[in-house]
Amino acid sequence: MTPAAIILAAGLGTRMRSTRPKVMHPLAGRPMIRHLLAAAEARFGRIVVVVGPDMPELEAAAAPHDVAVQRERLGTGHAALQASSLLGGHPGDVAVLYGDNPLITEATIGRLLAARAGADLVLLAMRPADPGRYGRVVTGTDGGVERVVEWADADEADRAVGLCNAGVVCAASADLFRWLAAVGNDNAKGEYYLTDVVALAREEGRRVAFVEAPEAELRGINSRAELAIAEAEVQAALREAAMAGGTTLQAPETVFLSYDTRLGADVVVEPHVFFGPGVTVEDGAVIRSFCHLTQCTVRRNAEIGPFARLRPGTVIEPRAHVGNFVELKATTLGEGAKANHLSYLGDAAIGAGTNIGAGTITCNYDGVNKHRTEIGEGAFIGSDTALVAPVKVGARALIGAGSVITADVPDDALAIARGRQAVFAGRGFKGKKGK
Amino acid sequence: MTPAAIILAAGLGTRMRSTRPKVMHPLAGRPMIRHLLAAAEARFGRIVVVVGPDMPELEAAAAPHDVAVQRERLGTGHAALQASSLLGGHPGDVAVLYGDNPLITEATIGRLLAARAGADLVLLAMRPADPGRYGRVVTGTDGGVERVVEWADADEADRAVGLCNAGVVCAASADLFRWLAAVGNDNAKGEYYLTDVVALAREEGRRVAFVEAPEAELRGINSRAELAIAEAEVQAALREAAMAGGTTLQAPETVFLSYDTRLGADVVVEPHVFFGPGVTVEDGAVIRSFCHLTQCTVRRNAEIGPFARLRPGTVIEPRAHVGNFVELKATTLGEGAKANHLSYLGDAAIGAGTNIGAGTITCNYDGVNKHRTEIGEGAFIGSDTALVAPVKVGARALIGAGSVITADVPDDALAIARGRQAVFAGRGFKGKKGK
Amino acid sequence: MTPAAIILAAGLGTRMRSTRPKVMHPLAGRPMIRHLLAAAEARFGRIVVVVGPDMPELEAAAAPHDVAVQRERLGTGHAALQASSLLGGHPGDVAVLYGDNPLITEATIGRLLAARAGADLVLLAMRPADPGRYGRVVTGTDGGVERVVEWADADEADRAVGLCNAGVVCAASADLFRWLAAVGNDNAKGEYYLTDVVALAREEGRRVAFVEAPEAELRGINSRAELAIAEAEVQAALREAAMAGGTTLQAPETVFLSYDTRLGADVVVEPHVFFGPGVTVEDGAVIRSFCHLTQCTVRRNAEIGPFARLRPGTVIEPRAHVGNFVELKATTLGEGAKANHLSYLGDAAIGAGTNIGAGTITCNYDGVNKHRTEIGEGAFIGSDTALVAPVKVGARALIGAGSVITADVPDDALAIARGRQAVFAGRGFKGKKGK
Repeated sequence: MTPAAIILAAGLGTRMRSTRPKVMHPLAGRPMIRHLLAAAEARFGRIVVVVGPDMPELEAAAAPHDVAVQRERLGTGHAALQASSLLGGHPGDVAVLYGDNPLITEATIGRLLAARAGADLVLLAMRPADPGRYGRVVTGTDGGVERVVEWADADEADRAVGLCNAGVVCAASADLFRWLAAVGNDNAKGEYYLTDVVALAREEGRRVAFVEAPEAELRGINSRAELAIAEAEVQAALREAAMAGGTTLQAPETVFLSYDTRLGADVVVEPHVFFGPGVTVEDGAVIRSFCHLTQCTVRRNAEIGPFARLRPGTVIEPRAHVGNFVELKATTLGEGAKANHLSYLGDAAIGAGTNIGAGTITCNYDGVNKHRTEIGEGAFIGSDTALVAPVKVGARALIGAGSVITADVPDDALAIARGRQAVFAGRGFKGKKGK
Repeated sequence: MTPAAIILAAGLGTRMRSTRPKVMHPLAGRPMIRHLLAAAEARFGRIVVVVGPDMPELEAAAAPHDVAVQRERLGTGHAALQASSLLGGHPGDVAVLYGDNPLITEATIGRLLAARAGADLVLLAMRPADPGRYGRVVTGTDGGVERVVEWADADEADRAVGLCNAGVVCAASADLFRWLAAVGNDNAKGEYYLTDVVALAREEGRRVAFVEAPEAELRGINSRAELAIAEAEVQAALREAAMAGGTTLQAPETVFLSYDTRLGADVVVEPHVFFGPGVTVEDGAVIRSFCHLTQCTVRRNAEIGPFARLRPGTVIEPRAHVGNFVELKATTLGEGAKANHLSYLGDAAIGAGTNIGAGTITCNYDGVNKHRTEIGEGAFIGSDTALVAPVKVGARALIGAGSVITADVPDDALAIARGRQAVFAGRGFKGKKGK
Repeated sequence: MTPAAIILAAGLGTRMRSTRPKVMHPLAGRPMIRHLLAAAEARFGRIVVVVGPDMPELEAAAAPHDVAVQRERLGTGHAALQASSLLGGHPGDVAVLYGDNPLITEATIGRLLAARAGADLVLLAMRPADPGRYGRVVTGTDGGVERVVEWADADEADRAVGLCNAGVVCAASADLFRWLAAVGNDNAKGEYYLTDVVALAREEGRRVAFVEAPEAELRGINSRAELAIAEAEVQAALREAAMAGGTTLQAPETVFLSYDTRLGADVVVEPHVFFGPGVTVEDGAVIRSFCHLTQCTVRRNAEIGPFARLRPGTVIEPRAHVGNFVELKATTLGEGAKANHLSYLGDAAIGAGTNIGAGTITCNYDGVNKHRTEIGEGAFIGSDTALVAPVKVGARALIGAGSVITADVPDDALAIARGRQAVFAGRGFKGKKGK
């Protein structure tokens, strides 16, 4: 009798002023919905995501979970009801969650489910710093929920209640869908409200309980400003965890992490660094200011930056150095190798101890296909060299500065490909000087 | 009877420790004085800026408005009086504003002017969190201003008043200049204080009113630290407006905007981006971390950065890409074109769909003049190419990697200009390996 | 009778999760221990640093001061006692300080020493916002210290005391070492606690006094998160001082300074700049966003960045310009000279008024040694030029774009070294267009 979840995610979020589904806006490098699904997958055996029409991006993000499409926007109760054909016969509990509550934790979901032992319907509630226009949760003498009253309908006494309804509910599948089917739309907006299941349960004489959780987990995200606040909360937690694990963040407030960034012990990160998704930095590595890393691995004691960009598929082996204005993509830089200045290395494998001179460029793209560059161990690529891929440079090879290398270079060979210098006396610079 | 304004801007600001006039220090990309003038121009038909001697930079910034020069620093009353030859015969009201109050709003000025309907002289007042040594505004039983008392002259009861004088005044031209001419300098510093017009008006039995405005609008800027605080307030407002308009700022506190930055809906800005003046970014464009943009246009769905610099006169057409360590100046990058790595494109026009290889450089400057580079549609510029301007590369042309292009290349032609590769076996790299 | 100090610095700091000695973690560009030593050197004639075994990095940082090695970790009293052979016969006072209190000021140390005039033993005490588990300082009716009670041993009344023990003590050498020798280890952890000298002094009927200092100076740094908090405090003070001196920091919270950064009057620093140790920026210079500077000098009215990296040994002469994606190392850029785009200049001297074109690279490293490049005044280095050092380019020389310069170029000469352009009609780009 594993529980199931319905996640309401059909909204566009008018206040976002976006053409994207609201829950597809990212936090710490992944869409809101993926944060929520990660927490939900730990607690629910089955999940149905209720989406709006024409949301292929969201349907893909919801995979492998089922989706139900809400074709008309008739309210939260109507949205939840769209999952009835998929979950109506579910032999356990069903909870309804909100896609724009991405920060809800596994622990909170666990407490919601556990509270079903003592009640037929369980709500999540919170005590916000500013209760504002949230619906209030009015409790009885037994500590159970008497009713939930919308702000617009609340009298002075109700509004003085600090306990607010977060909207999340959990009940046995049969109960939940019976109540959902009974919800009406006789109200100002003509919508079907999920919250009305509380009154229906109470009419049947059922016991309704609440579980209180922190506001930060349950506050909805309805605008870009609220998205930025949630992002700041996630970043603060990620930074705290990185520092507790032994990473120095000189200025944590200027370092941006993704949900899955892995930073080892004695890693040092200077101010102003951006970690996109999929980055691992091993013990003792240094990431200097102004670096941008995505889907890459930096191994032990390597040094990166300042001003380095590591793109997907990059591996920096132990003690290798990547310097300023250097970009790597789908490239392995061998142990102790160096690429310190103004270079682009794409689709390349570079041997241990090799030195890549300033201004080295792998010409990996011919306009149609990408081609590989392979450089052996202990080679020396002179500055300002273009390597026209596909091309191989052997171990211990030496490339003269300013060369355009179009053919393979054997191990231990010297290759040069540049024009010869001509000098013309008296034809120097006669333009304006300095400025 | 359109009102006129006198703006006092003669100060150097000793605590700024600067050789520039105080009001020329910038906030959000334009001098303080231009912020104030923008608000004032909406409300006043005529403006006179009172400057100090030898302030040509400020006189230029004040244009097209008249300036009056205060040759000796004898106080605010004396400064305002310098406008008498220009505004003495003005047939309407005259207000006196301060150049170091750049955050005063149109709305506040409007309320100041409107309040003249019920009083002969109107002051702006505020209730600062810390009233400190501001002069206090003492009101009578009718709600009008009885007197303004300087902190040094205030007794215990006066100092307990929270309402403080912001210094701004407004009256009929004839009244104001008559009072200004009557202000004396019999005080500790021997200066003529503008505030003394209040006592002179009261002596004539005139009614003096006050209009209260937020401290943030009226707090003077007297040091670089106060300038930084004002900048932070302006930035917070600009970011809030950008997010309300549908732009995602992942980390708003790390994105710096100018007063005129225009960001469209569904624009995404990663952390750490600097927008100088004159930037427009259209809907759906993405600006990655570590970009620096000034006086340029980024059209719909274009992608910029990370590490891109767009200088004045740059236009990035729809869906074009500018990548890392790429600088553009006075250049148009055509629709869907790409310049993804380590390039300098100056004074260039680049056709739709063209690919600019890594390390491409337009040699646009010969030490005396700038020259143009034109590249047609659908061309492919191989990596590490120098284009010696003036030069034209035709549509669908192909340039071999590592070339120095000095002559025009026709449509559909291939051009190569590089040295031939020579290989010498056994002459490879014999130096120290790795390190 | 100059006083001496014992600095306890043997800890690894378990919560740091680091293989480095705790006091070697840096704040504002130098190790914690160097901050403390700088304050201590102003007040003490002799300093002994107590280190742990195998800490050569720390021993080097402690130089020229003596070190004593604590071979077993038996507590703070035991650690201080390791200095007895060096300081047992010291003819004056001895204070015991902590290496992880790097923010203690000269002034506080001065007050500690001065208080010895009225007491045999002086402690530093503080009143933390959250007294938590600090030991409490219980005072008598005469204002002296009665006892210090550890939190674990404290009753309700003791815990209500807000005055906490910071651990720092000062006494006559003979007294201090006699007490230290008498400290026992009959406690839960079996350690010798420095604090026990208070009870020993009181048993002898000696007067014990305390000096109160701010929590921020005395709070220990025990984790990376606490290190980040201390760094933020140091940075705030450094920024405040820079602004007071006449430097504009548009967004001070994004500019990171080192303990010795020197910024002149009317220097403007845009957001997002990193100053490593040893940087001087003279009056009127501008540092744009995204610059990284270490051990270098920027002279009057020079302009740097955005995206510039100045490495050790760089001197930018007056009014010179360094632009985007430009790196300089051990290089002098002459007065009014320009290197505005995508260049690497290492081990070079560049004359006044010379223009360095985009994509210029000094090939200063042959894999074994570094070589110098010298360029005269008023020269023009065409774009995309490689200068293979050692090489000299004369005054007013002109280098053609795209050249590889391997031999010296005389004054007033033109040098070109590049391939000749070949064009092949009809062999243009036939790949996929756009994307």
